[in-house]
Amino acid sequence: MKLQARSSGPLSGLVVVDLTRVLAGPYCTMILADLGARVIKVEIPEKGDDARQVGPFVAEGEEAISAYFFSINRNKESIALDLKRAEDRVVFDRLLESADILVENFTPGTLSRLGYSWEKLHREHPRLVLASISGFGQTGPYRDLPAYDMVVQAMGGLLSLTGEEGGVPTRVGVSIGDLAAGMFAAIGIQAAVFERIRTSVGKHVDVAMLDSQVALLENALARLQVDKRTPAPIGSRHPSITPFGLFQALDGQLVVAAGNDAMFVKLCDALGTVHLCDDPRFSTNAARCEHHSDLKRQIDAALASRSVGSWLEHLRAAGIPCGSLNDVEDVMSDPQVIARGMLVELPIGRDRRLKVAGNPIQFAGSPPARPIRAPRLDEHRSALLQELGLEGAATVL
Amino acid sequence: MKLQARSSGPLSGLVVVDLTRVLAGPYCTMILADLGARVIKVEIPEKGDDARQVGPFVAEGEEAISAYFFSINRNKESIALDLKRAEDRVVFDRLLESADILVENFTPGTLSRLGYSWEKLHREHPRLVLASISGFGQTGPYRDLPAYDMVVQAMGGLLSLTGEEGGVPTRVGVSIGDLAAGMFAAIGIQAAVFERIRTSVGKHVDVAMLDSQVALLENALARLQVDKRTPAPIGSRHPSITPFGLFQALDGQLVVAAGNDAMFVKLCDALGTVHLCDDPRFSTNAARCEHHSDLKRQIDAALASRSVGSWLEHLRAAGIPCGSLNDVEDVMSDPQVIARGMLVELPIGRDRRLKVAGNPIQFAGSPPARPIRAPRLDEHRSALLQELGLEGAATVL
Repeated sequence: MKLQARSSGPLSGLVVVDLTRVLAGPYCTMILADLGARVIKVEIPEKGDDARQVGPFVAEGEEAISAYFFSINRNKESIALDLKRAEDRVVFDRLLESADILVENFTPGTLSRLGYSWEKLHREHPRLVLASISGFGQTGPYRDLPAYDMVVQAMGGLLSLTGEEGGVPTRVGVSIGDLAAGMFAAIGIQAAVFERIRTSVGKHVDVAMLDSQVALLENALARLQVDKRTPAPIGSRHPSITPFGLFQALDGQLVVAAGNDAMFVKLCDALGTVHLCDDPRFSTNAARCEHHSDLKRQIDAALASRSVGSWLEHLRAAGIPCGSLNDVEDVMSDPQVIARGMLVELPIGRDRRLKVAGNPIQFAGSPPARPIRAPRLDEHRSALLQELGLEGAATVL
Repeated sequence: MKLQARSSGPLSGLVVVDLTRVLAGPYCTMILADLGARVIKVEIPEKGDDARQVGPFVAEGEEAISAYFFSINRNKESIALDLKRAEDRVVFDRLLESADILVENFTPGTLSRLGYSWEKLHREHPRLVLASISGFGQTGPYRDLPAYDMVVQAMGGLLSLTGEEGGVPTRVGVSIGDLAAGMFAAIGIQAAVFERIRTSVGKHVDVAMLDSQVALLENALARLQVDKRTPAPIGSRHPSITPFGLFQALDGQLVVAAGNDAMFVKLCDALGTVHLCDDPRFSTNAARCEHHSDLKRQIDAALASRSVGSWLEHLRAAGIPCGSLNDVEDVMSDPQVIARGMLVELPIGRDRRLKVAGNPIQFAGSPPARPIRAPRLDEHRSALLQELGLEGAATVL
């Protein structure tokens, strides 16, 4: 018997078998699950996904539940299987018969050593899409090296672009090395599924965390080649648009961004500094970039008399892109974030609830389904075995 | 007559009409184009996409070509149309008849004012998928406010997590506010296309840059709620895994990351500091996080005698995740980046070539097609008009 797909959401109809651990893979499959795919998370017995051991933890009786794991595994079902045991392989093979997509983020070669090489999977399940997310990819001289987020953030150049001006290279404060790879993998999986509709043949999607970092370098590659200067951290301003950064008001900082000359004129008008438009140091974007610190001094001086809140109101009324410098607590109380449903409260443990980020992919007229909390390890074993027609095996396992 | 789709790549068969400007939208449609969709970029006459005015520039005779625009618009065709002119609307309407997907990143309401509301588009082209990328989304109190990358990076909390320990909040050195929204939009578009195969009905995908930032906050939301402390910049270490950051060797810094206790033991072994494993300050990940600066001192001391290159070789042989701290120049000469085809050289101007980032979404056994350089403004007008059966109109326009 085969697993039924879910019946709502744009990706309903798709079943994902998910061998991924920690972050890049689970983030990818969470995106697919949020969109309606049915995701069966296969975890190693007893221990489960490594992320279950990463804090912060919420106490639940004797147990400690990882809030970290909880926040990136909603809408998934869990079954614990040891792929080195014959009995568990029977269950896994049965899962694969139902699967449209298999996702894994082992070091390259591991899945083959477990007996599930792409060649074998493709021969036995020609429609299956396999997605492999790894540090460096399934090919190339670094193929076999392990990686974590920080390794690829540093190797991919992102640290070298981030930090205070003249300061040290700095990590992006979230694991963008993992998250970006998870997002590119979700894109590649969907593309392979789309192609399969035409060809009836699955593909092996190969996404590397390092490649994903290179794909995020934006204008830095061009700047190096054209300006012949290696890009370095420049704090909170933009390398080629000015003004575009943090400025100081009476009681704190705010962002002001004027992306073109017309917007700069509007900004000067709103700040009461129209004389700046005629200043040759500031008359074009190129001139403003050259004299960015002079301009910052002028704008800071203009902002000094009033509060952030007062300036935001004034600048927004004038149509100037601007915003507050929010910490995570501010984000969680932001009226737009709340109105967009970007905070979803789910039960974690018996008496406790935790807010997790909502789904940023929204469809007009289709409010997102309320997500289901992340599973306990092996929570769905008996229901899955029953659905697969393996109830008898359940007692043996 | 209708436009033909492209014939290779997983998304071949799809035609995208692309009204987007600057970064989030063009990044989204570049992803789709790299995967085989045919993307027709509709630009305003004379000026074109705003990004054409953003540096760095490459001189080409009298002209200055934006290397910035060039690096995010490959594989697209360009036609200049003024949607306020009746003659141009005829062409645009004809394009829509061929389109599977329309993508736009105007401020919400702008497309309606141009006469192409979702209601009208959906009525006249029920299969069309519309994707709208905006600063704050199509709903909510901030809906009408303009935004740029820096505005949402700051409002979404990412700056508050990034920077030196005890230092000021710092912008991520690439426009992750735009790039993340572009990626989520590409995911949402594919999901809507997949659903359309089942339902024959298109959807309106609504992706906000601010929502996308919230979706990247990873463990920060959980940390705030569980630890009751507002997360702040902590330099280049990880908030809940230690050691996981930059360390100092003889001639520079390198990344060392040990994600669990077993890996920490291996690391101590490789560093010749096995006594650290028995130190109660370092015996568990929680203890190591608490005593992270003590541990960093110990690891730095162990690394001080040898060069980065020598340590990388040694640690890699020992299976420890580690890496070099690369600037963009290092990235461009990295053997893995080159082996993976992540740098693609394209002609920009008559005598000049520029390397752009390759496609991070790879498929085993299907080498990516060589991309075509970004178009000149209106470069494909006559070919497109001919294909649409509007050659007669060409002279009138």
